[in-house]
This record gives sequence, C-alpha cells and structure tokens, in this order.
Amino acid sequence: MTLFEPELPDASAVPTVRVRIDVAYDGTGFHGFAENVGVRTVAGTLREALERVLGHRIELTGAGRTDRGVHARGQVVTFDASADRFDPVSLTRSLNKLLGPAIAVRSAAVAPEGFDARFSAVARVYRYRILNTPVHDPLLARVVWHVPTPLDLNAMRIGADALIGEHDFSSFCRKPDGEASLVRRVLRTCWTDRGEGLLEFEIEAQSFCHQMVRSIVGTLVDMGLGKRKAGEMLAILAARDRNVAGRVAPPQGLVLWEVRYPSDESAHSS
Amino acid sequence: MTLFEPELPDASAVPTVRVRIDVAYDGTGFHGFAENVGVRTVAGTLREALERVLGHRIELTGAGRTDRGVHARGQVVTFDASADRFDPVSLTRSLNKLLGPAIAVRSAAVAPEGFDARFSAVARVYRYRILNTPVHDPLLARVVWHVPTPLDLNAMRIGADALIGEHDFSSFCRKPDGEASLVRRVLRTCWTDRGEGLLEFEIEAQSFCHQMVRSIVGTLVDMGLGKRKAGEMLAILAARDRNVAGRVAPPQGLVLWEVRYPSDESAHSS
Repeated sequence: MTLFEPELPDASAVPTVRVRIDVAYDGTGFHGFAENVGVRTVAGTLREALERVLGHRIELTGAGRTDRGVHARGQVVTFDASADRFDPVSLTRSLNKLLGPAIAVRSAAVAPEGFDARFSAVARVYRYRILNTPVHDPLLARVVWHVPTPLDLNAMRIGADALIGEHDFSSFCRKPDGEASLVRRVLRTCWTDRGEGLLEFEIEAQSFCHQMVRSIVGTLVDMGLGKRKAGEMLAILAARDRNVAGRVAPPQGLVLWEVRYPSDESAHSS
Repeated sequence: MTLFEPELPDASAVPTVRVRIDVAYDGTGFHGFAENVGVRTVAGTLREALERVLGHRIELTGAGRTDRGVHARGQVVTFDASADRFDPVSLTRSLNKLLGPAIAVRSAAVAPEGFDARFSAVARVYRYRILNTPVHDPLLARVVWHVPTPLDLNAMRIGADALIGEHDFSSFCRKPDGEASLVRRVLRTCWTDRGEGLLEFEIEAQSFCHQMVRSIVGTLVDMGLGKRKAGEMLAILAARDRNVAGRVAPPQGLVLWEVRYPSDESAHSS
C-alpha cells in the first residue's frame, strides 16, 4: 500500500464520530506498532487501510505502543471518522479484506465523545509465553521464548509477587528522555503452567514503561534458572538502576492481551 | 545449505546402525516432506544436515509424506548411520543447531535392525484445526483453517463417525498411478471443542492415501455448514468417486501428530 496523496480531505470540516476498533496482530513482520518513516508498522498499515476505506485522512491513537516483533490480541485504537461514512459492520468487513492475516480487526464501534484508546485506559494486561522443553516446537516458534533448561516455577512466582503494588520501575525500563516518572502500579501477576512445558506469565498494570514486561520476564527467568534468588526482587526494584535487573526477554513471547476501560466508556460491540 | 560433493562416502562399506529420529516441523516454508529437485523440502533439508553431521551419505525414509504447507509434530524418520560415528545425544544437539526453528529433532535413538519408519508403522494420527470465529486470529493464521460461518459440530461428528472401519476411500483421495488400492482402515475419529472457537479433528488410520484427511475435513465442514447432510457420508464413500466428496481443506490446518509402532519396535528415547 502506498501513502495517500495530500489532497485527501481530513475529517475536521464535517461532523465526525469517535470510533474504537479492537485489533489483533502477529507482530513478526512489523517494526512495532507506532508509525515510523520508511518501515512497515502496525499503525501505519492500519491507518492506510482505514483511509482507503473511509476516503479521508485520519489520526490514530493506540492504547499500547508495542515494540518490534511484539504481538497483540486486544490492542485498542481510536480515531475520528466522518459521521456520514461510518458503519461499524461494513468497516470491519472491508478492513479485514484489505489487511490479510497478519492484522485482524475484531470489532468496530462508535465510542463516547472524548473516549481515547490511550488516555481512557485504566489498565493493560500483557501475556508472555515461555516454552520450557529440551527441544523447541516449530509450531510455537513465533509466539514463545524457548528456554531449554528446566525453570523453577515457584521461584518465578515469588519474584513476580514482589512486583505487585506501586514501585519505581527504573530497574526494568529504558530511561526516558527528560524527567518522566517510572513509577507504575502493578495490579496483578500470574504464572500459569499450561502443560507440555508451556508457561504463561500474565501481568496487569495501570500502565507500563518501555520494555518493562520483557525485562521483568528476563529477570524472573534468571530466578527460575537459579542464577539469582527470587527474594532479590525488592532489592532490584529499590536499586532503581537498569543494570541491576536482568536481560530483556525476546519480543516474540509477548502479547498485549487486553486493555481495560471504565465500563461506561468501553462501548465494546462487534 | 548446498548439496554435498559426490566423493562423500556412503555408509555401506562400514558397520552401520539403523537410526530413528522423531521430528517436528512448521511446513509453511517447505514444498512438502518428500525430496524434490529444485525446491526446499523437509526431507532434503534434514538429509543435508544429517550428512553434514555424520560425514557420509544417507538415505531417509519418512513415516508420512506430508504435502506442501502441512506440519508435523511426530514425523518419524529412519536411516542407516556409520556405527562408529553415531551418538544420539550429540546428533540431536548438532542437528537442532544446524536446522533452526522450522525443524526440530525431538529425539534420536538406535532402532532395531530392520525397523523402517514407513513400513513398521501400524497407525498414523493426524490433527486438523479449524478456527470457527467471525474474525481471524493472526497468531493462529499459520496453523488453522479460518471458517467464519458457525459450524454445527454435531453434524461433523455424525459425518466423522461414519468413516470408522474399512472403506474404499476413492471419494477422498487423488487417484494414484496404476492400480493401487484405496482401501484404508480408519481406527478412530474425534472432534474436540478447545474453546474460543478452536475446533480440533483427530483421525487415526493404519495408513492414509493422498489428500485423504484434507478432503475428509473439507467434506465434514460442508456438513457443519449445512451445505450437505451428515447422513450422506456412507453414500459418499460408496460412490468411490472423488467428484462426489467435498473440497480439499487448506494445508496449514493439518499436522501429522503421531506415528504408532508395535511397542517392541518403538525404540523411543531421547
């Protein structure tokens, strides 16, 4: 798909509606969610498809800026569409025809005025999957981190429990430009043994800073391998130093699973 | 990887052992299992890796010749290796290093003399996965057939039950060259609802003819859609005419799940 010509109208001159779409994608072939000049991104691909279907320019807001290679099951995107052109059912159908199997629009709906995919969100849920078997599984290679050495799930649970609550996550986040706070509130963590070596980590927080889930998982895996003690987690948080925590887990295991909104703003229907 | 030069020795001049390897693969990037000049196949890729590790030529036998795009979790392969070079643990490790994520050697073991992946097998089990949701799931796109219209699982169960036993499967198989029989014994069929729209069909038979599972699934899906009656299955079998049964389901939903051998010949260890 090529970019649209500048003469494409924007929607500001006509009555508009705020639209919410819920999107799943396989992040393997994308340089992340956020638009970036010269590379294929999820937001860029979505915007071009939306502009083609709607016939006017749009500006997208996504709930979470997933990194290169990270997937989504429940990414939420908002934009304004010209009111006279908008029909949720035909929009979903047209987009899914244009987009192919790597991106799927799961639903589209008119959202309340002022609803914003990013700023209205009250929580995000991420899942990270690890395949802990001696030999890799080719059918899961795109969606798991293969760790061949046996992991101590109990140690990883103890480490994860210590993350719950409000903490400064400087030890787990890329330092932002400027003085932005890295204090985040983690609402819930959960490790699930799905059987046949598949381990699933779920973490919910009001918001996350950059690479936070992947560096948490990398650190928890070091605890599962016995390379560091599960009891160290609070000390790692207290250090507020990225060098103190562990490696960043690879992107293909991570999925933006769900974004939560106050129920009166969710406007979720297919 | 390039082909080895003709001066590579074969193993016939020295004492050999019969080796069994169990292999999983993502069939997406391969033109099927069987070797074929000028295209990338699973058997060709495996043979080249084995010859590189063992240092002599080999001839591979696979339990099932999966088609282009079809996956395997439990393909079994046999070959003869020079006895003095063979170590199962280091062979598995070396192969998995060479092969990358699309093919995984799950185990390697010395098999009893005369054990043959194809002719010693007493049954093969295939699984076929269908995603029956209105919208596709990008993270499952490589391993399911997406059928957006709701399927009647009960109708598909009735149709599948009629396949059990010994039948002439001419209605479901590509006509072979010559007079080969298309009589096969189906031991078991099973539909499982895995939740969230994922439907899984498992079928076990002593052996299968070409495209048999995929044309059975295509026909069962027509029954699930109400396009044909589930009670027709015996009449479709009796017709012995490929034009009477339904379409061939797409390859990406199919996995050669398991190959069964008499227990005394299985020699299965990692």
